Amino acid sequence: MSQFGYRGKGLEFLTNNKIEVGSQVKIHADLVYSGVIMPRYEHSDDQHIVLKLKNGYNIGLDLDKIKEIVIEASPAIKKGSTYNAQPDQRLPKILLLSTGGTIASRIDYRTGAVTPALTASELNASVPELAKIANIDAEVLFSEYSENLLPEHWIKIAEKLDSYARSDYIGIIVAHGTDTMQYTASALAFSLSGFPKPIVLVGSQRSSDRPSSDAASNLIAATRFLVNSHSSGIFVAMHNNSSDEEIACNWATRVRKNHTSRRDAFKTVGGPPAYIIKSETIEKDKLFEVPQREYNPRIKFDNRVLLIKYYPGLNPKIIDYAIDSGCRGIIIEGTGLGHVGKTMYQAIENARKKGLFIGMTSQCIDGMVRMTVYDSGRDLLNLGVVPLGNMLPETALVKTMWALANSKNSEEATSLMNENIALEFSD
Amino acid sequence: MSQFGYRGKGLEFLTNNKIEVGSQVKIHADLVYSGVIMPRYEHSDDQHIVLKLKNGYNIGLDLDKIKEIVIEASPAIKKGSTYNAQPDQRLPKILLLSTGGTIASRIDYRTGAVTPALTASELNASVPELAKIANIDAEVLFSEYSENLLPEHWIKIAEKLDSYARSDYIGIIVAHGTDTMQYTASALAFSLSGFPKPIVLVGSQRSSDRPSSDAASNLIAATRFLVNSHSSGIFVAMHNNSSDEEIACNWATRVRKNHTSRRDAFKTVGGPPAYIIKSETIEKDKLFEVPQREYNPRIKFDNRVLLIKYYPGLNPKIIDYAIDSGCRGIIIEGTGLGHVGKTMYQAIENARKKGLFIGMTSQCIDGMVRMTVYDSGRDLLNLGVVPLGNMLPETALVKTMWALANSKNSEEATSLMNENIALEFSD
Repeated sequence: MSQFGYRGKGLEFLTNNKIEVGSQVKIHADLVYSGVIMPRYEHSDDQHIVLKLKNGYNIGLDLDKIKEIVIEASPAIKKGSTYNAQPDQRLPKILLLSTGGTIASRIDYRTGAVTPALTASELNASVPELAKIANIDAEVLFSEYSENLLPEHWIKIAEKLDSYARSDYIGIIVAHGTDTMQYTASALAFSLSGFPKPIVLVGSQRSSDRPSSDAASNLIAATRFLVNSHSSGIFVAMHNNSSDEEIACNWATRVRKNHTSRRDAFKTVGGPPAYIIKSETIEKDKLFEVPQREYNPRIKFDNRVLLIKYYPGLNPKIIDYAIDSGCRGIIIEGTGLGHVGKTMYQAIENARKKGLFIGMTSQCIDGMVRMTVYDSGRDLLNLGVVPLGNMLPETALVKTMWALANSKNSEEATSLMNENIALEFSD
Repeated sequence: MSQFGYRGKGLEFLTNNKIEVGSQVKIHADLVYSGVIMPRYEHSDDQHIVLKLKNGYNIGLDLDKIKEIVIEASPAIKKGSTYNAQPDQRLPKILLLSTGGTIASRIDYRTGAVTPALTASELNASVPELAKIANIDAEVLFSEYSENLLPEHWIKIAEKLDSYARSDYIGIIVAHGTDTMQYTASALAFSLSGFPKPIVLVGSQRSSDRPSSDAASNLIAATRFLVNSHSSGIFVAMHNNSSDEEIACNWATRVRKNHTSRRDAFKTVGGPPAYIIKSETIEKDKLFEVPQREYNPRIKFDNRVLLIKYYPGLNPKIIDYAIDSGCRGIIIEGTGLGHVGKTMYQAIENARKKGLFIGMTSQCIDGMVRMTVYDSGRDLLNLGVVPLGNMLPETALVKTMWALANSKNSEEATSLMNENIALEFSD
């Protein structure tokens, strides 16, 4: 059995010392730590207890190193009670929309539940700094780890955001798992192009068992960005480096999760982030400009698109499979400047004859697809493959799903693919 | 018609001025340039001529900006003649094996031919610095752009290299196109694990039309590495940054082409390159050690492996296609720590029941796959998906082709996949 995520030795330690999650304690170990006992999460070990320090960091303390623990105050809020946040009505209003992921489940430390349900008062209680920056309403849209999100979830998120386009919120935070955050960001960038407020997707990379959680710092930075940047459009805010003092606000279509676990996993590819949010300032990249477009929500996606990464020995029948399974588009992650081996040509020609859109990106990730340099590229251009410049493969995939769903025919879809809707093409 | 790759206005300019490719000239343009007229390559424009400066750089000069051109010397070597390189027999012997690609075609500037045929004397003539470092024999294995290479080409290269394992060459350079160089490097690392000499794959990123070609500097650095490093195993030598003075020698299984066009496109993922070759020194990374293995050539590949990059909306039928088309293995590029959506589980289970090996890597590229952290990972582990640590997806793909071909059954293949053969797993 477990309680607040504690089990085994950890639970025993808390029970023996009559300590509840939420208690204010002083712990003597290698150093003396003061803070609030935090819940653990599913499947954590039973050798540590987690303490939220006054500076906002969570640390995990090894039970074997604890010499003494003193209760300084009982939990301020009892399980299930409502925290009496006192919103300052003079502050700007923002909405926090939760879709799930580590960030949403972690934040709920008072109830100890693993479910990512998140209310406004719970949020204010867990990151009290937020209430000093903005009046935050929170809403749970769904509670999924982002690897389980599908294009239909993108549609739900986009429709919800669209319903707030003309609201009195000055901006919206979307709490989201990090696994597919870049795909959702692109989906919102296309379906909500020209959105009149800033929308920031925020995730967290580190579980509460680790010394420092990035959830609070990312949320605080995102809130400050919404309140102070006077920007608009879709962004992803995550750590810029190993410090808590610098959060990068990356433009949706140009960001990629480039590391499995680092807090600064998300990087704007091929350039600096659009904004850097530091403790005192928000710095805009000189070259970054939010595209000025009329707000034109087109919230449809057609997931009949196959992403194929080319490699030596790839069986060209994969293209026949795409045709046979009803795909309307193929995004190729080619090699180098945008190539595939000659063995693929015939199958590509067949797919084009069947009317499939075929777009070329590069598995190099960074740099431009340029298909006029070598024979291989020109051959593919002649087959009707569309070069997609420096559009990221993941962005190109999402855009193809969007373009196919929002156009009457293949020509119109191709035309949308070549149009720079949301900075998916850049210099 | 074209001559030495020159056509139109460029050819006219050379003809009118009685200048041959190979001529030593002085050109007055914005500045005064002295150097040797180089050939152009297929599909270059007719507005520039290319000059090899004394410092080794190639520059393209705009015909419209040339005020005067003075012939200082006729070509040292006539078309088709043999260059009288005078090899210094005291220098160590190395072999240069050419497989094609930009580097091999570009180097052949005296004959002007686009075919990547390369002889020792031609090589010495085009990069005279090499003859001062080593006695170089050159051999043309085939002449393909690397996007057209297949696992059967890996086998040809590996068998050729194997035939020189006990030769008096102290090391071997493989000139190779950059598009799939990392795949070939991995293929050699597995099939020739424990190779007793250093093998360096060398490519070039910039066509001769560009101001600075990286072919010569990469070749010189690779030659110096073979002669001086006392290393062994398979490496990829390319620019480390934008300077010609620093060439990175990356370990085969940990390198990736991360940019479509930059000269320093190749990066060791998750750490520094194994060696940095500077103008005076060769610096080994402190943590890098060549794995000490008995030489055990196992030169077989089975290309019935499908690489699947997971994304929201991916049709799980792709797995059924893999089964139906006779695949023996699947490498998944999952999200984050190694996840796919629940929609894929049933198909993955089916594939496992049919005996397919399924390995998990991350599309984040950098960082470790860790499938015990979240439910999604544990679910996949329970289905028999094999986590592949920080093995690069491309390396994992090649390794699976190799492991399946060099094992008697699925268990043996899985065991090979989990064994650290060539530093494909690292810390």
